[in-house]
Amino acid sequence: MTPNISAAKAALSHLDMEENPATVRNKSRDFFWYSPVLKAELDHLEADFVINPKTEEEIIEILKVCYAHDVPVTMRGGGTGNYGQAIPLAGGCVIHTTQMNKVKEIGAGYVVVEPGAIIKEMDAEIKEKSGQELRMFPSTYAQASIGGFVAGGSGGVGSANWGALRDLGNINRLRVVTMEEEPRILEFTGEELHRVSHAYGTNGIITEIELPLAPAYEWVEMFVRFDTFRAATEFSGALTSEPGILIKLASVYAAPIAHSFFQRVKPYVTENDHLVGVMVAPHNMDGFMTLLGRHDDGDVIYRSDDLQWARSPGPMYEFGWNHTTLRALKFNKGLTYLQVRYGGDVDKVVEAYETFKGKLHMHLEVMREGNGLSFAGLPIVEPMNKDELDQLVADHEAMECMIFNPHRYTLEEGGRQSTDKRQIDFKREADPKGLLNPGKMIAWDEPDFDYADMYSYKGMRPKPEATE
Amino acid sequence: MTPNISAAKAALSHLDMEENPATVRNKSRDFFWYSPVLKAELDHLEADFVINPKTEEEIIEILKVCYAHDVPVTMRGGGTGNYGQAIPLAGGCVIHTTQMNKVKEIGAGYVVVEPGAIIKEMDAEIKEKSGQELRMFPSTYAQASIGGFVAGGSGGVGSANWGALRDLGNINRLRVVTMEEEPRILEFTGEELHRVSHAYGTNGIITEIELPLAPAYEWVEMFVRFDTFRAATEFSGALTSEPGILIKLASVYAAPIAHSFFQRVKPYVTENDHLVGVMVAPHNMDGFMTLLGRHDDGDVIYRSDDLQWARSPGPMYEFGWNHTTLRALKFNKGLTYLQVRYGGDVDKVVEAYETFKGKLHMHLEVMREGNGLSFAGLPIVEPMNKDELDQLVADHEAMECMIFNPHRYTLEEGGRQSTDKRQIDFKREADPKGLLNPGKMIAWDEPDFDYADMYSYKGMRPKPEATE
Ligand SMILES: Cc1cc2nc3c(=O)[nH]c(=O)nc-3n(C[C@H](O)[C@H](O)[C@H](O)COP(=O)(O)OP(=O)(O)OC[C@H]3O[C@@H](n4cnc5c(N)ncnc54)[C@H](O)[C@@H]3O)c2cc1C
Ligand SMILES: Cc1cc2nc3c(=O)[nH]c(=O)nc-3n(C[C@H](O)[C@H](O)[C@H](O)COP(=O)(O)OP(=O)(O)OC[C@H]3O[C@@H](n4cnc5c(N)ncnc54)[C@H](O)[C@@H]3O)c2cc1C
Repeated sequence: MTPNISAAKAALSHLDMEENPATVRNKSRDFFWYSPVLKAELDHLEADFVINPKTEEEIIEILKVCYAHDVPVTMRGGGTGNYGQAIPLAGGCVIHTTQMNKVKEIGAGYVVVEPGAIIKEMDAEIKEKSGQELRMFPSTYAQASIGGFVAGGSGGVGSANWGALRDLGNINRLRVVTMEEEPRILEFTGEELHRVSHAYGTNGIITEIELPLAPAYEWVEMFVRFDTFRAATEFSGALTSEPGILIKLASVYAAPIAHSFFQRVKPYVTENDHLVGVMVAPHNMDGFMTLLGRHDDGDVIYRSDDLQWARSPGPMYEFGWNHTTLRALKFNKGLTYLQVRYGGDVDKVVEAYETFKGKLHMHLEVMREGNGLSFAGLPIVEPMNKDELDQLVADHEAMECMIFNPHRYTLEEGGRQSTDKRQIDFKREADPKGLLNPGKMIAWDEPDFDYADMYSYKGMRPKPEATE
Repeated sequence: MTPNISAAKAALSHLDMEENPATVRNKSRDFFWYSPVLKAELDHLEADFVINPKTEEEIIEILKVCYAHDVPVTMRGGGTGNYGQAIPLAGGCVIHTTQMNKVKEIGAGYVVVEPGAIIKEMDAEIKEKSGQELRMFPSTYAQASIGGFVAGGSGGVGSANWGALRDLGNINRLRVVTMEEEPRILEFTGEELHRVSHAYGTNGIITEIELPLAPAYEWVEMFVRFDTFRAATEFSGALTSEPGILIKLASVYAAPIAHSFFQRVKPYVTENDHLVGVMVAPHNMDGFMTLLGRHDDGDVIYRSDDLQWARSPGPMYEFGWNHTTLRALKFNKGLTYLQVRYGGDVDKVVEAYETFKGKLHMHLEVMREGNGLSFAGLPIVEPMNKDELDQLVADHEAMECMIFNPHRYTLEEGGRQSTDKRQIDFKREADPKGLLNPGKMIAWDEPDFDYADMYSYKGMRPKPEATE
């Protein structure tokens, strides 16, 4: 099955196609370089051509043509994925959704939108038109597309209240186009949503999304300082556990993260200060301050609604989630990170904090989860090589901390290291030639893979002759 | 300290005073008769006169005059309290807040209101003016005042999401007038709220209330049928545990409650059907139906947005909370009830269900509580005498199910059987003569009371000579 690139390009030449090599290279890359491991593996890859469709019909046309000519197709929204999700491992066509960005309908509690809408822009439109906002968004709010979030993300700012993106009720409907001789248009709800949500576009193209909304508030953003990591963690958990205090974000930054990496915060903290970053509904500030009063050693050092600092630190969401690592990387390119699930037990988090001192700087995001809460860790990891990093992952797993390994480019390794039957079953139906984002779903290529070491996709375009 | 009733009446005669004996008797009574025990104790009691103030100034005037003449003062809103909260044990003056019912301010996420506003009416005004609604209300929505709810209630429809009324963030501010020679006006927030919230008006008069709001939705009301009590309970817990499915109510009615006591539901259920009653946000119906699909044996037999029955059963909130008992009482005046806290463990609830079969019909309300949820029980109890009822309470306590005894008229016995230091401390300050709703706070009259048997207030007006 050799792709006939030139035939596909010729057939699609009437569409908005990018061929400028710098643009093609740019649009073939995402935030994979966040990981030194992925950087080494994926840096050479790029698509053969990029198309910016304007409509679902154009997408169908692209899929039909690429199917006929065996050309791989990889979707791209904002290109902010940090697992290399949007990198075309086998080249081919990249479909950039940037021009499919319309907000189609806003109702009480929901929105219908095209996949290429930049989250911050669509949220502003929703807010202006209806006083509502998205329940949750990634910290890449300003750059990421809503389609990329649904296909490649997991949660973010808002998960402190609403849980993860995959939790029931956080996506209402997805419209999906298949990659067959005659592409079909399907509407998914309920259990079917999980076929294509967080599937990296390996088994269908999302062309329309219906999401629930929440009321928009002027969230009060604050940094709260604590003397100890335990006190900061306990407070963040207690806050998330209060049913009557509406919050959107509760992040914990162990010392010295704020002092070392948060430039505009640095003047107001010492190396020993642990911070909690929060977004609280303005009408619940009384409840918030009351709860804080019960945790004696916490001080609010910054409040967005009462700025005492020389300069605003900027939006709180650009400190949390993966942005913490991004800020650290600006100071030291050698740093990296992990994604860990500790569960709801503060003692376990503190144990991990003590155990890995020196190797990592603890950063937590608190999420509501089922009948309780969960601490999601996105610790900043000191410079280390791949073997040391693998060892660190193994040490976490030995402590029963689940790792979503951000140094892997497959769905399975970045997730629960197991096959999602719904996703593979649907890929069989919707992408019989295996042309959608090839190499990202291990179960498709090597069902018996055992996860002992990093998966290496055989169809990946080889590196050019090394010059060093 | 003998009250000088006639002097007080004379001094207040320019206000809107009720003296018609039938009206005075009516306005001296609440839903105490729900309990056969309270019915026997309190049936003879009434105030000497009732005043309907229009303003805070008039309230201050009443308090000043009654203070001068040692006249007890008991507040009354809707008079729906079921613990005899609003009954003037020592006679005196009843202040009926009915004319202080203005919605003073509506903002993004909050409302400021006078205490006498009927909850349903104020909620309609808030909804119309701002698209918002109260976070929670008692099932007496249509009759109860917001001041009576804050001073005498504990939670209700909405607690499935927002927790109890006493949870941080569910009341923002209370304005309170004291009963001293010169009444003071105080504004309470934070920890101070608990001085007067749920204090039955024993230590201050609430004249203004600021509450948080939530967005108003066209909640989808449903009855879901299950074969077993365990399955119904598990589903109600699972539903309340889903962070992404927004609900307002999740009630469990063990068989045969619906068949025996829910007249308009009866044609659609058998004696063996267990029901779950819910209110779900319309934009989360997909998530709801998906979750239900995972609990195989649940069927939706009624949906408010798709009525298949000959007659609508009426609003879902008038089935839940204390309304379940009210419906049962309409069929059998001998029935009574309990208020139990089981915590979050389904096994414990099912154990209680098995243990007390024959003695009570299980009815649960699920509430979010701290880092999890709690099953609040309001079981319907088969006719029994006071000793049997005391035994039933003792049996529950032996199983470590906390009882809020609704067959007692004091704050302590209806609550956690212990002194609330904040309430008694504030009473010392705000009501030095002990004239506010006398007899309701044991700690004031008999600090050493041991709770072994029912408290009997010595200042209670004696029963008239028995004629039988
Ligand atoms: C600094 C930083 C912070 C981040 N914070 C978060 C966070 O808080 N939470 C979080 O979940 N993630 C986070 N991420 C990861 C990423 O930004 C988010 O998942 C983001 O939502 C991806 O959106 P995007 O438009 O950039 O997607 P892209 O990177 O363009 O694509 C992501 C994946 O989705 C696929 N895809 C895109 N569009 C479609 C479509 N229409 N149909 C089918 N498949 C499609 C792509 O092929 C790719 O596999 C972060 C990353 C960085 C670098
Ligand atoms: C069928 C039924 C269902 C119920 N359901 C619920 C429920 O779901 N949740 C719940 O919490 N309760 C419930 N209750 C109890 C009661 O209805 C509620 O607590 C209700 O909110 C009381 O409001 P009200 O205006 O009727 O108060 P009232 O009965 O008039 O007063 C209640 C108490 O508050 C005091 N008070 C009233 N106004 C003031 C004021 N301005 N300042 C100071 N003190 C004041 C009174 O003195 C009294 O002690 C129920 C009762 C019944 C009979």
